[in-house]
Amino acid sequence: MNAELDPVLLTPGPLTTSLITKSAMLRDWGSWDTDFNSITRSLRADLVDIVHGRDTHVCVPLQGSGTFSVEAAIGTLVPRDGKVLVPQNGAYCKRVVRICEYMGRPVVELPIEEGKLPTGAMIEEALLRDPAITHVAQVHCETGTGTLNPLQDIAQTCARLGKGLIVDAMSSFGAIGIDVRTTPFDALVAASGKCLEGVPGMGFVIIRREALEKCQGNSASLSMDLYDQWAYMEKTSQWRFTPPTSVVAALRAAVDLFKAEGGQPARGKRYQANCDALVSGMQDLGFRTFLPRDVQAPIIVTFHAPEDPAYEFRTFYEKVKAKGFILYPGKLTEVDTFRVGCIGDIDRDVMRSAVRAIEETLAEMGVKQISHHKIVA
Amino acid sequence: MNAELDPVLLTPGPLTTSLITKSAMLRDWGSWDTDFNSITRSLRADLVDIVHGRDTHVCVPLQGSGTFSVEAAIGTLVPRDGKVLVPQNGAYCKRVVRICEYMGRPVVELPIEEGKLPTGAMIEEALLRDPAITHVAQVHCETGTGTLNPLQDIAQTCARLGKGLIVDAMSSFGAIGIDVRTTPFDALVAASGKCLEGVPGMGFVIIRREALEKCQGNSASLSMDLYDQWAYMEKTSQWRFTPPTSVVAALRAAVDLFKAEGGQPARGKRYQANCDALVSGMQDLGFRTFLPRDVQAPIIVTFHAPEDPAYEFRTFYEKVKAKGFILYPGKLTEVDTFRVGCIGDIDRDVMRSAVRAIEETLAEMGVKQISHHKIVA
Ligand SMILES: Cc1ncc(COP(=O)(O)O)c(C=O)c1O
Ligand SMILES: Cc1ncc(COP(=O)(O)O)c(C=O)c1O
Repeated sequence: MNAELDPVLLTPGPLTTSLITKSAMLRDWGSWDTDFNSITRSLRADLVDIVHGRDTHVCVPLQGSGTFSVEAAIGTLVPRDGKVLVPQNGAYCKRVVRICEYMGRPVVELPIEEGKLPTGAMIEEALLRDPAITHVAQVHCETGTGTLNPLQDIAQTCARLGKGLIVDAMSSFGAIGIDVRTTPFDALVAASGKCLEGVPGMGFVIIRREALEKCQGNSASLSMDLYDQWAYMEKTSQWRFTPPTSVVAALRAAVDLFKAEGGQPARGKRYQANCDALVSGMQDLGFRTFLPRDVQAPIIVTFHAPEDPAYEFRTFYEKVKAKGFILYPGKLTEVDTFRVGCIGDIDRDVMRSAVRAIEETLAEMGVKQISHHKIVA
Repeated sequence: MNAELDPVLLTPGPLTTSLITKSAMLRDWGSWDTDFNSITRSLRADLVDIVHGRDTHVCVPLQGSGTFSVEAAIGTLVPRDGKVLVPQNGAYCKRVVRICEYMGRPVVELPIEEGKLPTGAMIEEALLRDPAITHVAQVHCETGTGTLNPLQDIAQTCARLGKGLIVDAMSSFGAIGIDVRTTPFDALVAASGKCLEGVPGMGFVIIRREALEKCQGNSASLSMDLYDQWAYMEKTSQWRFTPPTSVVAALRAAVDLFKAEGGQPARGKRYQANCDALVSGMQDLGFRTFLPRDVQAPIIVTFHAPEDPAYEFRTFYEKVKAKGFILYPGKLTEVDTFRVGCIGDIDRDVMRSAVRAIEETLAEMGVKQISHHKIVA
């Protein structure tokens, strides 16, 4: 591997994609043309199938990063007199709160410690306390820490109490099983450049058709009106505004590879093997994970920074990068951490090489004290 | 040329891009990494330079299609108690009106016939009539017809009357000269996949720094808050949310090619030659342009559809496509037309081949009567 040219991205998206996926971008597509429209059509169908939603749900793709699709889902699904509950255990939950505040939708937080889980019971209590709440916005994998929130329990609670559920499954979609028949939701948001291993540039929202049909006029944004995008797409097979054609073509190729690999079960298994190889290798070096094992998603792992005064993230990052691996900074305010992603077109051998690169870097930096209970020889 | 695989796009974006531009997408970029950040930084500087705005203006890129950037510019620049005037002579002007209506910003139209031009004097009159108007939103090249609106006259009027000017220069930026020192504006919107010959997936807004500095809190959308995007980018060199890395890398390559070609003057000259070759070739076949020559931008040309009953757009389109050229449907409600783009990595030989393909197609379809004054032999 030529580390200088193409480092492996151990980040939660953009990530390392297959050459087949990238090569799909070597063509110019007319956005009005039937060839391109048939890509859009087949992608929308495949994405709904991943959550077994064919009978009940539709897929509405949207230009922009994942956050745009989260905002679009809230702006389209939550009526202007609605109210949103956000179980809040990390950075991406906070972003949902900020989105609601910006657009003036009333929002209440259910505060939970980072790394701790919300439960259906906690959400039920919050909903009963404030009957004005119409929707729950739940982050599935909270990428800020790597926490996997218990979606099925929460979804069933919302369904039972007749509340709409909007899921931010950005970093979990395609890797962690979600079945709409047992995990009911109104909308679920994900993006091209995460576990489907496409390139970034578009998001998509899987929406319960009966809910969407009632959403005309909710959105205060033309660009992010998923009702209008959906209605137009159903009629014309086209996107309302110029689609990111190369990103769409790359996603088509990536989803073909995803299916060939064996779909979500196979993808999830590979990522779990990546995560296991990473965590055990890092633990051998003396690192401690921020999260206990039972709440850790196999997506991205937060490690406590070494305690040794010789450690400094920027140098550590640059040196590991020079060996061919791009790490990710921590996203916690209280604790010094860094993160390592387990997703992308990589396997556990890559993770083991990454651990070796980290080991060598620590030696070069003279970092010996990794944690209070482990000192490297 | 293998027509089956790679037809030439004679459309107003996405368009035919150079292989060098597409090849820049064959790499995975970490969005947090300094290598990628330096691409963002140099692109922002180069884009401001194209309008000679280095001393006064900044470039704020935004994920999504061009419409997202138009909406973001209005939502960020126009305060909530502002009011927008839209000189309206086509489909993209109408879209600006719709954007304002969606977001609840008061908007007034200055109706102008399609293909006719607004003038500074007309805008002055409208501004004097309604002093509540704070901003004018002017489309530069109205791509719906191909009309080039007189931007400099309008800009000077707005400046003189102390009104903010927001320009949608989506389809003209990089091809038609705009100099902020003589054509003053608060914001000018364009996108990656138009005359800069990148791929679609991001827009950007060139904003007068002093105007932008006052815009905190205006936007009712987190994703489209250009103030917040700018403040974050200035601080970190990063995008707030995941950038479309491959689109950005392709735009970097495309802008390098743009500069190597000789910048806007050279690009404009090539497009003008493309437009001239197209129009004269089509006129030889008997076609009439919708616009008179003096208002025609060298970007996209609207032709009246043949009057012969044997003509039907869908068949015409498919047959021309089979010969290697993708045309574009008309966007006028009253008159039957089709459009042919002059932009992209193409030259006048390509335009001549396109005309030949159109000629052959008409013969195959048995279309003889092109217009009332010309019957093909
Ligand atoms: C859970 C979650 N939500 C939202 C986002 C935001 O996505 P984007 O950066 O594409 O806007 C991310 C990005 O990593 C994420 O992990
Ligand atoms: C003048 C003008 N404005 C706005 C747009 C919209 O851009 P997009 O389709 O990328 O949203 C276009 C697209 O061609 C345009 O030509």
